Amino acid sequence: MDKASLKKLLDEYKKGGTSLEKVAEKLNFHSFGTMEDVALDNWRGLRTGFPEVIFGMCKSREQIVGIVKRMLKDHSVILVTRTPEGLDKDLRKLKISFIYNSRARTITVAKPRKLSGRIAVITAGTGDIPVAEEAAETIEAMGVEAVRTYDVGVAGLHRILDKVSLIRSCDALVVIAGMEGALPSVVAGLVDVPVIAVPTSIGYGAHLNGIAPLLTMLNSCAAGVSVVNIDNGFAAGYQAALISKKRR
Amino acid sequence: MDKASLKKLLDEYKKGGTSLEKVAEKLNFHSFGTMEDVALDNWRGLRTGFPEVIFGMCKSREQIVGIVKRMLKDHSVILVTRTPEGLDKDLRKLKISFIYNSRARTITVAKPRKLSGRIAVITAGTGDIPVAEEAAETIEAMGVEAVRTYDVGVAGLHRILDKVSLIRSCDALVVIAGMEGALPSVVAGLVDVPVIAVPTSIGYGAHLNGIAPLLTMLNSCAAGVSVVNIDNGFAAGYQAALISKKRR
Amino acid sequence: MDKASLKKLLDEYKKGGTSLEKVAEKLNFHSFGTMEDVALDNWRGLRTGFPEVIFGMCKSREQIVGIVKRMLKDHSVILVTRTPEGLDKDLRKLKISFIYNSRARTITVAKPRKLSGRIAVITAGTGDIPVAEEAAETIEAMGVEAVRTYDVGVAGLHRILDKVSLIRSCDALVVIAGMEGALPSVVAGLVDVPVIAVPTSIGYGAHLNGIAPLLTMLNSCAAGVSVVNIDNGFAAGYQAALISKKRR
Amino acid sequence: MDKASLKKLLDEYKKGGTSLEKVAEKLNFHSFGTMEDVALDNWRGLRTGFPEVIFGMCKSREQIVGIVKRMLKDHSVILVTRTPEGLDKDLRKLKISFIYNSRARTITVAKPRKLSGRIAVITAGTGDIPVAEEAAETIEAMGVEAVRTYDVGVAGLHRILDKVSLIRSCDALVVIAGMEGALPSVVAGLVDVPVIAVPTSIGYGAHLNGIAPLLTMLNSCAAGVSVVNIDNGFAAGYQAALISKKRR
Amino acid sequence: MDKASLKKLLDEYKKGGTSLEKVAEKLNFHSFGTMEDVALDNWRGLRTGFPEVIFGMCKSREQIVGIVKRMLKDHSVILVTRTPEGLDKDLRKLKISFIYNSRARTITVAKPRKLSGRIAVITAGTGDIPVAEEAAETIEAMGVEAVRTYDVGVAGLHRILDKVSLIRSCDALVVIAGMEGALPSVVAGLVDVPVIAVPTSIGYGAHLNGIAPLLTMLNSCAAGVSVVNIDNGFAAGYQAALISKKRR
Amino acid sequence: MDKASLKKLLDEYKKGGTSLEKVAEKLNFHSFGTMEDVALDNWRGLRTGFPEVIFGMCKSREQIVGIVKRMLKDHSVILVTRTPEGLDKDLRKLKISFIYNSRARTITVAKPRKLSGRIAVITAGTGDIPVAEEAAETIEAMGVEAVRTYDVGVAGLHRILDKVSLIRSCDALVVIAGMEGALPSVVAGLVDVPVIAVPTSIGYGAHLNGIAPLLTMLNSCAAGVSVVNIDNGFAAGYQAALISKKRR
Amino acid sequence: MDKASLKKLLDEYKKGGTSLEKVAEKLNFHSFGTMEDVALDNWRGLRTGFPEVIFGMCKSREQIVGIVKRMLKDHSVILVTRTPEGLDKDLRKLKISFIYNSRARTITVAKPRKLSGRIAVITAGTGDIPVAEEAAETIEAMGVEAVRTYDVGVAGLHRILDKVSLIRSCDALVVIAGMEGALPSVVAGLVDVPVIAVPTSIGYGAHLNGIAPLLTMLNSCAAGVSVVNIDNGFAAGYQAALISKKRR
Amino acid sequence: MDKASLKKLLDEYKKGGTSLEKVAEKLNFHSFGTMEDVALDNWRGLRTGFPEVIFGMCKSREQIVGIVKRMLKDHSVILVTRTPEGLDKDLRKLKISFIYNSRARTITVAKPRKLSGRIAVITAGTGDIPVAEEAAETIEAMGVEAVRTYDVGVAGLHRILDKVSLIRSCDALVVIAGMEGALPSVVAGLVDVPVIAVPTSIGYGAHLNGIAPLLTMLNSCAAGVSVVNIDNGFAAGYQAALISKKRR
Repeated sequence: MDKASLKKLLDEYKKGGTSLEKVAEKLNFHSFGTMEDVALDNWRGLRTGFPEVIFGMCKSREQIVGIVKRMLKDHSVILVTRTPEGLDKDLRKLKISFIYNSRARTITVAKPRKLSGRIAVITAGTGDIPVAEEAAETIEAMGVEAVRTYDVGVAGLHRILDKVSLIRSCDALVVIAGMEGALPSVVAGLVDVPVIAVPTSIGYGAHLNGIAPLLTMLNSCAAGVSVVNIDNGFAAGYQAALISKKRR
Repeated sequence: MDKASLKKLLDEYKKGGTSLEKVAEKLNFHSFGTMEDVALDNWRGLRTGFPEVIFGMCKSREQIVGIVKRMLKDHSVILVTRTPEGLDKDLRKLKISFIYNSRARTITVAKPRKLSGRIAVITAGTGDIPVAEEAAETIEAMGVEAVRTYDVGVAGLHRILDKVSLIRSCDALVVIAGMEGALPSVVAGLVDVPVIAVPTSIGYGAHLNGIAPLLTMLNSCAAGVSVVNIDNGFAAGYQAALISKKRR
Repeated sequence: MDKASLKKLLDEYKKGGTSLEKVAEKLNFHSFGTMEDVALDNWRGLRTGFPEVIFGMCKSREQIVGIVKRMLKDHSVILVTRTPEGLDKDLRKLKISFIYNSRARTITVAKPRKLSGRIAVITAGTGDIPVAEEAAETIEAMGVEAVRTYDVGVAGLHRILDKVSLIRSCDALVVIAGMEGALPSVVAGLVDVPVIAVPTSIGYGAHLNGIAPLLTMLNSCAAGVSVVNIDNGFAAGYQAALISKKRR
Repeated sequence: MDKASLKKLLDEYKKGGTSLEKVAEKLNFHSFGTMEDVALDNWRGLRTGFPEVIFGMCKSREQIVGIVKRMLKDHSVILVTRTPEGLDKDLRKLKISFIYNSRARTITVAKPRKLSGRIAVITAGTGDIPVAEEAAETIEAMGVEAVRTYDVGVAGLHRILDKVSLIRSCDALVVIAGMEGALPSVVAGLVDVPVIAVPTSIGYGAHLNGIAPLLTMLNSCAAGVSVVNIDNGFAAGYQAALISKKRR
Repeated sequence: MDKASLKKLLDEYKKGGTSLEKVAEKLNFHSFGTMEDVALDNWRGLRTGFPEVIFGMCKSREQIVGIVKRMLKDHSVILVTRTPEGLDKDLRKLKISFIYNSRARTITVAKPRKLSGRIAVITAGTGDIPVAEEAAETIEAMGVEAVRTYDVGVAGLHRILDKVSLIRSCDALVVIAGMEGALPSVVAGLVDVPVIAVPTSIGYGAHLNGIAPLLTMLNSCAAGVSVVNIDNGFAAGYQAALISKKRR
Repeated sequence: MDKASLKKLLDEYKKGGTSLEKVAEKLNFHSFGTMEDVALDNWRGLRTGFPEVIFGMCKSREQIVGIVKRMLKDHSVILVTRTPEGLDKDLRKLKISFIYNSRARTITVAKPRKLSGRIAVITAGTGDIPVAEEAAETIEAMGVEAVRTYDVGVAGLHRILDKVSLIRSCDALVVIAGMEGALPSVVAGLVDVPVIAVPTSIGYGAHLNGIAPLLTMLNSCAAGVSVVNIDNGFAAGYQAALISKKRR
Repeated sequence: MDKASLKKLLDEYKKGGTSLEKVAEKLNFHSFGTMEDVALDNWRGLRTGFPEVIFGMCKSREQIVGIVKRMLKDHSVILVTRTPEGLDKDLRKLKISFIYNSRARTITVAKPRKLSGRIAVITAGTGDIPVAEEAAETIEAMGVEAVRTYDVGVAGLHRILDKVSLIRSCDALVVIAGMEGALPSVVAGLVDVPVIAVPTSIGYGAHLNGIAPLLTMLNSCAAGVSVVNIDNGFAAGYQAALISKKRR
Repeated sequence: MDKASLKKLLDEYKKGGTSLEKVAEKLNFHSFGTMEDVALDNWRGLRTGFPEVIFGMCKSREQIVGIVKRMLKDHSVILVTRTPEGLDKDLRKLKISFIYNSRARTITVAKPRKLSGRIAVITAGTGDIPVAEEAAETIEAMGVEAVRTYDVGVAGLHRILDKVSLIRSCDALVVIAGMEGALPSVVAGLVDVPVIAVPTSIGYGAHLNGIAPLLTMLNSCAAGVSVVNIDNGFAAGYQAALISKKRR
């Protein structure tokens, strides 16, 4: 249950449109949305400002469809990440409209809204784009505009220098890099905007599947950088959107 | 050179109080503040909103005193972290007023200002307090209020549950933990405020000097967590203050 | 050979139902149950209270069927873990009754018994359930009741808080978590029951295939936690059942 | 506050020996035992069966003395581990009687009690004894008898084989080993008692300060082994005592 | 070229059966047996007592067949390890007799010889047998008898204790174990024979693909243990056979 | 844009063959060669002496063909590494001539040129040859002769000793080894030529996919060795060619 | 008790020089030589051919002196490794003759004997010499001649090539190297003698305190190499001497 | 013996100034410059162009003085790195002139020479300067000019951009960085000069004593970077000087 849904329920009660019993039942029902093997955290939207995001990895398509169905009743936006192959087809049968981003592997069920705030999503290389798309989709699901700025790594500095005024105008930056992961340090040295750095698993050998750029980012000599897990575009987009929303 | 100092210089010129040559010289001088072995990044305050912070590790006391002297001319606030033993005594000879926090190992040279915004600095244990103090001093040097909330680790959950409404009122949270580092996940599940997580080196054995809580925090199942280096209270405080300042 | 089988043999001798030679032969035979490449540890049931469990990984289906056949003679319960695909079909040909749990990948051959004692098997997420099922099947094979409590991770604390009185009534707890693995610390801080913690390989990036939650659990700030190998539901279930059985 | 103290308070109230206000104040006071920088978890004794143990590492002697003083009022037993050098002298000034074990680096403040239950504390080598002593002191502080069995490593198997019947009579075993850490596997293969394994940092080179025996123990081929952190005699003793107490 | 082939060539010359030019050419030819991309080390048999072994990994079947053909001329024994799938079929076309061990993935081309000396090849579990077979085939290719002793791990100590007198009669032991890898320490404590320990990749989770038993073996508390690479049955068999041959 | 192309453009302008507007447009166009998701670094050839190399990993065949088309206009040589399967077929449709080396997985588009300078590319084993071919192709794309010297590892020292005078005549050496990676140390001790060492992922077990030879090479006891990433034949070839070109 | 002492005892009994009771007592006494905290493995000399070696690390000087005293009765040779500072002075008070090697940090108590067999102890650098001395002292304590050959690392190959015929005449080789640890591979490629390789902690940075040469040695491309723990000269010397003794 | 010394000796013989016997003796003497425990590699100067450098770590002051004395006879330059404290005082007694750089911890004994060629030694921070000084001293000992350029890390990009034309004029660059180690990638993207990258141990926490920047540099997205060991200024300076000398 998110703020909008709760407000609607309480307003209905206020207007006499529903009885105390129904409200209590509905709220109680939400206090523990247990399905088989799944304990939905229905209050999360109220506690943290955004409903529970469905992490698709290790869930069956049936489980996800079930959770989406249940959430449709009380949430104005639903985000699924790491969608299993074919989930979009299953969801189409529910006759709901949603956005499926195959590069990001995300599905967003949401009514059209006006976005506010702005976050740049920046990548060092082209291989980092799927992670960036996951971040961008998360940002937009949370109601903030995502400005995609791709393939501007440090081997050709003029590419990022060219974008400085654009990115200085954002509320927060998601900076994504594989290989040696140097881009967040360089960016953070140029702007006064918080940088959320995302290492990716793009690389090989001593890259150690992303450990190399992860360490790079954690040791940044520039201030204003914090880091999320390797390939975790979702976490970075979420954190950046939280920062942007707090601003308003 | 920070915004305040630049404004003062330009206003003086506007009022005819100084000549073009003098302004040019002063600006030029700042473009490269080279001392022996040290290349001061004088424009950082303008680029990133806060002047270069003096990282005391691996610098001699003489070097630091020299840098402070140079910065005094053009900066309204100077922050030294990881101060070497005895630096406070050296600085006292400069006849300037500053705050020395021995637990944080920081020195702040700043005029009294009104703080705005609020950030909670939260620790899991008592051993994490020096890192927390470094974060808090950084936050205050950047003009934001730091609310210290210590020793509220997950082994006794009621301690943090008790603080939820306090911390929900902040712009951002710095959550610091050694041992298994579970506190940031628990906190982020309770609030809609960005959490900057700091693992500490408090622990032993399979703790690996902080690698254990670092991994914990990077893998947080709760959204809204980003991470900085082990024991890096400065980076967390800086990032949190940047978020708070962006809000306004 | 387990206690029940030994008692039966000795009683038969006592009653004159078998000769000394036959008993000696039988016992001698058991002292070393060698098959080709396999040295069955026939006395384990007497030494450790439970017969040798057949670890299916790296064994061929033929080998496992052969071992099961041999064990059927002298054991009242047989447990196979990490069963290779198709083993259930092979065993069906033996015309014996058994339970095949495909999520747990276990097969249990046992007569119906009354369970005694109670152990809660708790998971942080849905992805951890196969490991939990392996634990639960092991617990039940050892004659103890397993209470399944799934998807109650720390991102939504009320889910586990809701279960505290249930889990306090158990003899031991198996607490299973992937991602950052914080659940065992939180649970152990709430109860006076031994917690056997199991890290899982559910996660990615800096999760390092389960090393992250393993370290988390080893560094628990709450007392009363001990840990088994990543994804080792069997070891946790076994240890918990041993604790429960010792109680009586 | 532990069960005994709570019972005393409630009985006093029942007998009219104290007023509701005083009880409320006392309980309230305990709900949050905040001292400067330290948030005592006063209810832990009730929740987990044993009061908060004072982990001496990273605490000043002054802090520890302060905590001990506060706890003396409501707890029948106080345990300090990893005591800083000289703490025993400080505590002597409080005119209380306590046991200081310098090898274990523990201090126990407790009235004489009858111990019940029995746990063997077993080491592979002589270098592991300080860890064993920490375990034994914890076990005894929790009211259980500790049977010390030292220097029985696998290079001379007859030493442990000689002890089998003794250790089979215990409720649980704490098995401690540095070097390659093989002892817990061997012991668990001989008995039907839960083994809590403790790797130690005794070794060098590829021992990696205890990582080698830690991995050994996590990969035990014998069932009935769970593991705690390197050198964490306290955690092992605590877990074993919890198991023993649950038995009764 | 091995000793036998060299002797034959020189004897032929002595008897006048060949000219100096032919000998020179033949020896010269051997000094550098270059094929495309492959530089055969023809003198190795003379230097190290055994000709170059063909390591099949990363070589094409064509390359291996080519090398075998070339070596047939001057070597009385040829060993191929890590044979690619189907190599046995290719070699059959050469109309030579050889032994193909599919579990060991080895092919040996050798005339029947009398074996001398004896080495026990011992495994902890059944999963370790392929590595053991590679060791045994290597030992036999080098002219020493291999005594296979499988599935005698430390969880059931009586299995190995039962074999002590057998293994004490050997020149050297190859002891192979996955999981926690404790068997070599236990064996070395029982005998006065050098133990060559081989860790295997059998295990999961914190086993780290064999790193766990590798560290165990390197840290053995028993003297008389040296270690080879994970799953390297060849290296262990070679070292053991070298020890056995040196004896005579 | 590389030097040759720039010279051609400027000469054309000098001769009046093109207008200022056209030159400006062309140069401007190059300043940022953005395609969808790809930001071509057109000036790299001028800055670093060689145009941007197309790293094929994580790029689709369509993307690579698009980039090649664009680069054909202004570059006299184009190098693609880590080519995806089938790329050669796609490029054939462009009716351009190029060299496809399937072992190296490289494609070079270049006009025939005279090579100058000489670099030896040396491998320890046959499994290292694909990495060596990538190095050799890179060297030749940069206009330097590559001398291939394969399978001369340290187990048969005479193979490399035999080549000393050849390799002493080169400008730089690329020395490639998997397994224990000892060859670069041995080579560097024999010559006065810079050695660029490349560890490969050829090996298993404690080889850790190339970490073992990487560490070996970084710790070389012989001076004159620097190292590139595991399996990175391109980086080694590039560095060696840069050294050779600097010579002239 | 070693073979010599046992023989003496039994011969005395045979000759009627002692009673059955006295023999039984003496043997019984030896079956478990328990001192406070120390369980001497008195039978080890009979089982493994050499009595328990006293590993001085983590033992107090008092403990070691006590053990030496006890062992003096029944052992013809006593070896102490990793001797604590000052132990030689303590032992001098016992009025026994012994050899103290301060570089090796060993003490050997033994009657003069004729050495038989020969082992070369070879180091790559001068920093490896303390480890080599520990190996050499162990070899000599076990009755074998040790041939010291120091500072012959691979950066100057002629140094080791010069020694080939000497080392080919030995029963086994102990080859010790820090830095990149390449020497054992090179040596094993030149001889038909088993090589026991010892990595040392001499190095820095990516040397990881000896992990680099350890991995190098485990991945040796030359056959005939097995490895012991970092800096473990004792284990290597012991293994080599065992090999040499088996020969006779 | 270096080229100059050899030439002098042969010329003397040519002129009849010395006998064949004396030359032979001198050369023979040099073929193996054995001192106690030290095997001087006298021919290295001829083989590799620079005599053996004395690595001071793990050598006693006496040993180093002895080696210097011996080398003085036949070498025109002697370099000692990682000098132990006080070595300069010992060498002063030899009445030779040398340069002692205390930050670099190097001593150079050399006649004044004209330097030729030029190498920039660049650091990211002030803490990296000792490593840079070691590189610079090595470069100058090898006869090449070293241009020191310190404290130009990526947090303030204008500092390095300002130096581009200077560093483009060099034969090779030594680029040194601790923290995240991003500087070499940025520099290599700006120039056509080979970059030898040196990670330093300056940093903390997830820096892992230099492993973080080491991985960064190995994964550089810019071509033209090769890497040496952590803190190994010597290796980088040597490699760079070798490149510069080859040029001429």
